Amino acid sequence: MVIKKLLIANRGEIVPRVMRACRELGIKTVAVYSDADRGMSYLNEADEAYNIGPANPLKSYLNIDAIINALKASGADAVHPGYGFLSENALFAETVSASGATWVGPPPPVLKAIDSKCFCRKIATDAGVPVVPGTINTINEVNEVYQFAARYGYPIVLKLDKGGGGKGIELVKEESQVKGAFERLSRIGLMAFGHPECYIEKEVNSPRHIEIQFLADKYGNCICLGERECSVQRRYQKIIEESPSPVVNENERKRLFDYTRQLALAMGYEGAGTMEFLRSADGHFYFMEINARLQVEHPVTELITGIDIVKKQLSIAAGEKIAIGQEDVTFQGHAIEARVYAEDPVTFCPSPGTVKKLSFPVMNGNALRIDHALEEGVAVPPYYDPLLAKVIAWGATRREAIERLRDALAGFGIEGIKTTIPVNLLILNNEKFVLGEIDTGFIETLNLKENKDLLKPLWPCL
Amino acid sequence: MVIKKLLIANRGEIVPRVMRACRELGIKTVAVYSDADRGMSYLNEADEAYNIGPANPLKSYLNIDAIINALKASGADAVHPGYGFLSENALFAETVSASGATWVGPPPPVLKAIDSKCFCRKIATDAGVPVVPGTINTINEVNEVYQFAARYGYPIVLKLDKGGGGKGIELVKEESQVKGAFERLSRIGLMAFGHPECYIEKEVNSPRHIEIQFLADKYGNCICLGERECSVQRRYQKIIEESPSPVVNENERKRLFDYTRQLALAMGYEGAGTMEFLRSADGHFYFMEINARLQVEHPVTELITGIDIVKKQLSIAAGEKIAIGQEDVTFQGHAIEARVYAEDPVTFCPSPGTVKKLSFPVMNGNALRIDHALEEGVAVPPYYDPLLAKVIAWGATRREAIERLRDALAGFGIEGIKTTIPVNLLILNNEKFVLGEIDTGFIETLNLKENKDLLKPLWPCL
Repeated sequence: MVIKKLLIANRGEIVPRVMRACRELGIKTVAVYSDADRGMSYLNEADEAYNIGPANPLKSYLNIDAIINALKASGADAVHPGYGFLSENALFAETVSASGATWVGPPPPVLKAIDSKCFCRKIATDAGVPVVPGTINTINEVNEVYQFAARYGYPIVLKLDKGGGGKGIELVKEESQVKGAFERLSRIGLMAFGHPECYIEKEVNSPRHIEIQFLADKYGNCICLGERECSVQRRYQKIIEESPSPVVNENERKRLFDYTRQLALAMGYEGAGTMEFLRSADGHFYFMEINARLQVEHPVTELITGIDIVKKQLSIAAGEKIAIGQEDVTFQGHAIEARVYAEDPVTFCPSPGTVKKLSFPVMNGNALRIDHALEEGVAVPPYYDPLLAKVIAWGATRREAIERLRDALAGFGIEGIKTTIPVNLLILNNEKFVLGEIDTGFIETLNLKENKDLLKPLWPCL
Repeated sequence: MVIKKLLIANRGEIVPRVMRACRELGIKTVAVYSDADRGMSYLNEADEAYNIGPANPLKSYLNIDAIINALKASGADAVHPGYGFLSENALFAETVSASGATWVGPPPPVLKAIDSKCFCRKIATDAGVPVVPGTINTINEVNEVYQFAARYGYPIVLKLDKGGGGKGIELVKEESQVKGAFERLSRIGLMAFGHPECYIEKEVNSPRHIEIQFLADKYGNCICLGERECSVQRRYQKIIEESPSPVVNENERKRLFDYTRQLALAMGYEGAGTMEFLRSADGHFYFMEINARLQVEHPVTELITGIDIVKKQLSIAAGEKIAIGQEDVTFQGHAIEARVYAEDPVTFCPSPGTVKKLSFPVMNGNALRIDHALEEGVAVPPYYDPLLAKVIAWGATRREAIERLRDALAGFGIEGIKTTIPVNLLILNNEKFVLGEIDTGFIETLNLKENKDLLKPLWPCL
């Protein structure tokens, strides 16, 4: 392993997660922090920690210069970008590589190319992988939207070519909504991503979100680590993730693996990545997009395969071959993850504040995984994604995993701030969810606003 | 499943462990407690709890009448005996069955027969399974010991035919020790087990303790769930257990599985059980004895197979078939368990007292299992086995599992009483241990008394 000292260009729960892999591999760690994150406990566990600027993420976690300065000052020889922030930013990857350090992710030219969702749609189409029906090229004028709809009908979905993280998506149900949606999207695209171009997809009927985790090395090897179902979402952002999916059968899984390998190889992909697919109510799969980084929900895959995805990222980045073949990837039981956010469980509005009291669940008689960056007294700042912790339970069956996750969440005491634990529990207790009858519209069926009483915090928000 | 309400005839960490399986299966639970255990937190989690007498275990946890009274009062329809206490007591099993309740364990006649280690040695010999060289029948006079030694030489081991739990074993290195050992053993046998008979084994050179976990049903099905290596022991009692063993290869595993199935079927065994073998330094395996109950160390097997052994015990007891075949049992990675005792880490003397402060390790980024009956303020009474908790870590490799267990133990805060955590850490950091070069004499090589300084409590014993 050529990596000796790794800088983790991120914040929150993913930092101690990556640090653990490093500790086990004998790699030294460098953490970075904004002024708002001075108190994070993982900073003490890192071998070194560097301040990279003010709370505003544009001036710290998104500030390439500040991070490169920390990289040089620390003498770290590699950078792990985590997820979000600069993790899929080709310029950052290029700058890291130009400085002589190893970039833990796909090579910068690959990142640059696949940053365009239309480019990926084209690659998929060429490779014979079905994509969500819609335009293959970006559109420049609102008229093209009308033309598309005239031919294929409403509802349609407008998406930014370079959007991401659930941002830059507009559902258009009828003609009167086209102009507003198109203008809103172009504005967001220009402001948030520097690119106003968008494309059109037909809305898929009651879709389920199914994604394939894969690993690819520079020697042309690519293996798939199973699927994850992430259909329980709010605002196109996942809340509950699990593996295997309750609906994907062995044949479909094989087909999705084939699609994934074809796409990854056609893209020249290296590293860990995720191919996202939609599954329509009538059982068709459509390639949607690729996530060129570690996913928040990677632990569910780790729990059923026993494969440490972060360690694999590090070894692939260090130029090693993937030592195992597809036939060596075995799946055991079922894993399910709940994301615990510092948010109001009814409105999903962020609820920053200070964690006054904290007690982690200990599952007597069963293993449990909690990825977090919590401790008593820690401030949850308003500047960043309010993910507090991920709770992941394993079971021999889906039912067992759900029950264990439920028990764990009920025993997770976080006082002082509002959390989404009550809504997580509502989902896990929902009959349809337990039966696996979910699609991306599931969360709306819960009528959270009418069911406020069910969503009282389990623990006081003082 | 015919079991609706289960009485757990035990105390400590195994009670919440069995209760979890019941909760997940929809079985109601009945706990019992002695006066000394009134404060145990699991009593609140049971559906019902019955006092069965004073602290003295002879008057409570070993008191068949008191437990049968609780069984009748509760209306429970099954009894899980845990381990230790009455778990292998044929009379107890018979009384439970006679009351109309289901006994979760081997049928009473099987328990009665295999209670004699010599009987099992005979079955093994008849089945062609090698046993530790020695007498097949019990001996009645000290002269037989001299005759055996005259023929086969010293050192020899004298064992009680009906001993167990590491009790009733005397190592005899030379002729002058024979008389004392024989008399001591007969006395212990009569007092502790009501049977003074013993038998003789040649001492196996630098043996490793390898055991096979198996499940057998009444339809003649028997599957093996892999081996556990438990060579790190003090006073013939295990401290660290792991699976797979660092030395057992695929051929040996298959042979041990064959031995186990032959023996289990020859014994008419039903339920979960463990065949214990010794492996000599030159790689020979010898059947030693059978444990006709759940083992303390069962979690390591659960973590690598994904099979819940307690649930299997319950379904087998309820008359169900083992639904899976040997080919369905898959093994993933490595698991290792440390037993945390309320004992002085140098002398292994029990250290009862009150747990003043408690903080469980939370492994960021990795799953961890802790089986325990701890909470702040709980009293650790002097009357029972001082096992406080079992900490079990999983890793893709043995090295990874060891590192994670080490991290977990270092982060396990128990204040107010002495614990064996420092000696567990000393073992896990020992180079020979990490290389897997261990035998049952390993613990003596640590020279605990000379290395007292290394064994200071990590947390204050106020």
